[in-house]
Amino acid sequence: MTVQPLTSPFPQANATSAVTSPASDFKPWRGLIETYRPYLPVTEATPVITLLEGNTPLIPVPYISQQIGRGVKVFVKYDGLNPTGSFKDRGMTMAISKAKEEGAKAVICASTGNTSAAAAAYARRAGMRAFVIIPDGYVALGKLAQALLYGAEVIAIEGNFDEALNVVRNIAETYPVKLVNSVNPYRLEGQKTAAFEIVDVLGNAPDWLCIPVGNAGNISAYWMGFCQYHSLGKSDKLPKMMGFQAAGAAPFILGKPISNPQTLATAIRIGNPASWDKAWAAKEASLGEFNAVTDEEILDAYGILASQEGIFCEPASAASVAGLLKVKDKIPHEITIVCVLTGNGLKDPDCAIKHSNNQVKSGVKPDLSIVAEAMGF
Amino acid sequence: MTVQPLTSPFPQANATSAVTSPASDFKPWRGLIETYRPYLPVTEATPVITLLEGNTPLIPVPYISQQIGRGVKVFVKYDGLNPTGSFKDRGMTMAISKAKEEGAKAVICASTGNTSAAAAAYARRAGMRAFVIIPDGYVALGKLAQALLYGAEVIAIEGNFDEALNVVRNIAETYPVKLVNSVNPYRLEGQKTAAFEIVDVLGNAPDWLCIPVGNAGNISAYWMGFCQYHSLGKSDKLPKMMGFQAAGAAPFILGKPISNPQTLATAIRIGNPASWDKAWAAKEASLGEFNAVTDEEILDAYGILASQEGIFCEPASAASVAGLLKVKDKIPHEITIVCVLTGNGLKDPDCAIKHSNNQVKSGVKPDLSIVAEAMGF
Repeated sequence: MTVQPLTSPFPQANATSAVTSPASDFKPWRGLIETYRPYLPVTEATPVITLLEGNTPLIPVPYISQQIGRGVKVFVKYDGLNPTGSFKDRGMTMAISKAKEEGAKAVICASTGNTSAAAAAYARRAGMRAFVIIPDGYVALGKLAQALLYGAEVIAIEGNFDEALNVVRNIAETYPVKLVNSVNPYRLEGQKTAAFEIVDVLGNAPDWLCIPVGNAGNISAYWMGFCQYHSLGKSDKLPKMMGFQAAGAAPFILGKPISNPQTLATAIRIGNPASWDKAWAAKEASLGEFNAVTDEEILDAYGILASQEGIFCEPASAASVAGLLKVKDKIPHEITIVCVLTGNGLKDPDCAIKHSNNQVKSGVKPDLSIVAEAMGF
Repeated sequence: MTVQPLTSPFPQANATSAVTSPASDFKPWRGLIETYRPYLPVTEATPVITLLEGNTPLIPVPYISQQIGRGVKVFVKYDGLNPTGSFKDRGMTMAISKAKEEGAKAVICASTGNTSAAAAAYARRAGMRAFVIIPDGYVALGKLAQALLYGAEVIAIEGNFDEALNVVRNIAETYPVKLVNSVNPYRLEGQKTAAFEIVDVLGNAPDWLCIPVGNAGNISAYWMGFCQYHSLGKSDKLPKMMGFQAAGAAPFILGKPISNPQTLATAIRIGNPASWDKAWAAKEASLGEFNAVTDEEILDAYGILASQEGIFCEPASAASVAGLLKVKDKIPHEITIVCVLTGNGLKDPDCAIKHSNNQVKSGVKPDLSIVAEAMGF
């Protein structure tokens, strides 16, 4: 084997001229607690349990902006690039750090998806046990594989999801086990930092924030973050909070809880949101709106994001973009809009497989002109 | 519904005192081309196609560090948090931006995994067609779902992988279609930025870099990056390059290509690495080593990373940590080591499901004491 030169074959890629060094003023991201420490309920005594979550990209989406026109600028906050693949990591770094500070040896939640994965990853990293209680026979192993691999101890009870929630609350009241379900107040504290990041990148708050609404904790957390940053003078405006629910799981549109929510967007398939009051307060105070989007509209937005913008999100995440496109005729000129994408598309491979209307062309002979013809040349 | 206060329930979390503002010196990440522009073969004429890739976290792994002891500090470079879930995005932002600059209307590759996903995402974002050529009957739809959703046009030819590669090369020579396989020289240019980021975070190069070796492009790119930064005075040392292959796909250990590589770590299941010479040059010049790790050792490391550190990577990625643990007795005192994790664990859900030796406890009655007993209380 000949030893090859170790440098780039491109002359300008080896620049040694006196350029501004990106290294010299490079500030490594230290996770959201260290970055936003003054604005979070932590002290010197809090052991920070972090996977360097947060600092997720705010990506311009030019195709969607163009669909709307009128000089409107749309970005997506791609929170699927958090360490366990969803925005839940923001709340969990706080909840688990505080649980550790309080001396907990174990945490517990009732969840079948993103929450259980985040809880398990952070709890195990902190050297704690992570219990996940689920209804028996309700959940496919695929949904739980990530949490199990992180070391979650999963117990399936005879009963429905409400009974699982009940058990979880009782255990947390009786045993030295910390509840990290959405009722844990530190969760929203961590989640609000996504609003800080948006303001820090844009230099101001956006005019609209479009966000999927399920349990309604995230819209509440964003609003808390925008209000706090505004009161600190870091933005001179507050966004209109535009919350979108799946049509089959839209208690906010019906004005009352529903008992059997249905949507393929499993992460927002919730009939009785835990943060009902907080979310309504955010909508009212921001002069925002709640709207419903159908599963078909969600899948359309999911496909557009992937095939036009190169961004692969969970189906539930696409509700924010579906909602924006639904109300596009009433968007004012030249405003800035951020759509929140809460989870990574890799979390739901079955949906990607089912939705790929793109067909594979099979049985093509490996001959130049035949392949070229199959390509349309 | 009562309107709730919009602020945090925790007094210190609303700090309005004169704290150092993270916003004031916040520098949003602009993607790797903009960040490292002076060191990359781009000009003002290059249209930058970016999903804000790069800037992935360098996460300390305290459990693994402790296993080694002797004051050794281990970090993982978690490149699975790139936009399409693997390090391939680093090369693809360069390859697609240059293809666009050169006026290409389409790109082509022969890949069944991470490369096809990255190529499709960036090409579609650039408004180009993305062709993926695969051998007929060889690839499960699940592996291709991500690329298909991004809008790849997949053509399955009658023949094996070598014939697919052949077709791809011929098409790129004959039609206005840009080849973005690993032979595309811009790919390694983008990939070398991962080394820049490591030095920028640590303030110097690590003593060892442990990295999975399949096609051997990534180890070559890292070495190129470390050498370049060293020559610019940004580090005062160069790391020992420690490359790890799967035992069933270890041509570097055998010293010759093999025809039927076997390993569950599909991303490094390669018998005849494209960057053979470059990788050997890197190993020789850095006084590094190549070693093989068994699938069992890979799975052990994969499990440890998830259940002890909270980090979920592709099986192939875990080869770097498996290798480190294999040679741990010869690690010098107090050195700094970076292990590269090339892909996101969510890319291979089947492996997670199969590997979860953690069992779900089913059929537990929803009674406080019975659940507590199942939990071990």
